[in-house]
Amino acid sequence: MNYTPTDRTTPSRYAKQRMHYDEATVHAILDEALFCTVSYAVDNVPFSIPTAFVRKGHTLYIHGSVGSHFLREIEKGIPVCISVMLTDALVVAKSAFHHSVNYRSVIIFSKAEKIEDYEQKALFFKELTDKIVPGSWDYLRPMLPKEVQKTTLLAFDIHESSAKMRSGMPIDDEEDQALPIWSGLIPLSNARLAPIPDDLSREIPLPGHLVR
Amino acid sequence: MNYTPTDRTTPSRYAKQRMHYDEATVHAILDEALFCTVSYAVDNVPFSIPTAFVRKGHTLYIHGSVGSHFLREIEKGIPVCISVMLTDALVVAKSAFHHSVNYRSVIIFSKAEKIEDYEQKALFFKELTDKIVPGSWDYLRPMLPKEVQKTTLLAFDIHESSAKMRSGMPIDDEEDQALPIWSGLIPLSNARLAPIPDDLSREIPLPGHLVR
Repeated sequence: MNYTPTDRTTPSRYAKQRMHYDEATVHAILDEALFCTVSYAVDNVPFSIPTAFVRKGHTLYIHGSVGSHFLREIEKGIPVCISVMLTDALVVAKSAFHHSVNYRSVIIFSKAEKIEDYEQKALFFKELTDKIVPGSWDYLRPMLPKEVQKTTLLAFDIHESSAKMRSGMPIDDEEDQALPIWSGLIPLSNARLAPIPDDLSREIPLPGHLVR
Repeated sequence: MNYTPTDRTTPSRYAKQRMHYDEATVHAILDEALFCTVSYAVDNVPFSIPTAFVRKGHTLYIHGSVGSHFLREIEKGIPVCISVMLTDALVVAKSAFHHSVNYRSVIIFSKAEKIEDYEQKALFFKELTDKIVPGSWDYLRPMLPKEVQKTTLLAFDIHESSAKMRSGMPIDDEEDQALPIWSGLIPLSNARLAPIPDDLSREIPLPGHLVR
């Protein structure tokens, strides 16, 4: 299935080479990224906040304290823009001008819908926790009703969205290609390193889902 | 020197524990991060774009094609919000509710000033290139005047800015601390991996600034 391009999801540059509207591409980026930047505006003054999120179907969810000023603004249903970027490599050309970045990004235009249903909120926490630390939900101390109640959950329809990506090697000018200047990629790692226990956990075996 | 907090740079939560207004902290985050998300609004509809940047003194610079719709909007001097986040570790508590993230973030409220001066634009390219790939500028094919001219350079005063950070181990509820559930940190790597040459560079020795 393809998301339908709109003026807002059609860029002024690279509209053909780099843009993707198919669901599979958009969802894969959203499911790999742990964090997004949510923007909104009041009197045309923009505000941006990085936050964790999870996608399910055509909906993206964020959460936070019921006291959060940011969530209280956007839960009114004002327009928001959500952006996500994964950086894969620095693209090193023979000239500075042709340097670039290999990235996979998504932009979404939407409005918040506040989720009040207890079961839906509880399910979100399971899905977010298992996204951030796969396999961990069933191992943890079960969530308490008061913890669910202390949290605001907002849902965003993602039908107005697009992915933008660059991949591959640098593209140098024809006349530069014979220069004895090294060009290529510097891959960027997004790896998770070995877990470090806190003082309470030194004697506790690392659970299977954290062993790699 | 401290940046002066304003309503916009004072959050509703963790205003004491996590906020930093000193120049050294704000600048260190800006100098380590390669990418920021720039947001602006038209008729209260927000737009966000991730882009590379460089800081010099109290100014942050971004650039792009003179044809970029995004740059043409913000070069008018409308309000922008610039956000930056470095993610250091996933914070794994004994309950999902106390899971968190160790991060270092900066938020800036500003307006663009377009830089037309040729020398200032040329200097920006050197500084951006040497930030993204340290030591590389003098090795590359020199930048051409037409390349400088094809590029829009925008400067943002960063005096209205703040840093927000979390570090350290999870903080579990008192009554959870004796549970035999592993808690601690999963550090996130932001490392650069071994460079990969393109087809034009297989016979070209890797330059010293790319050897680690």
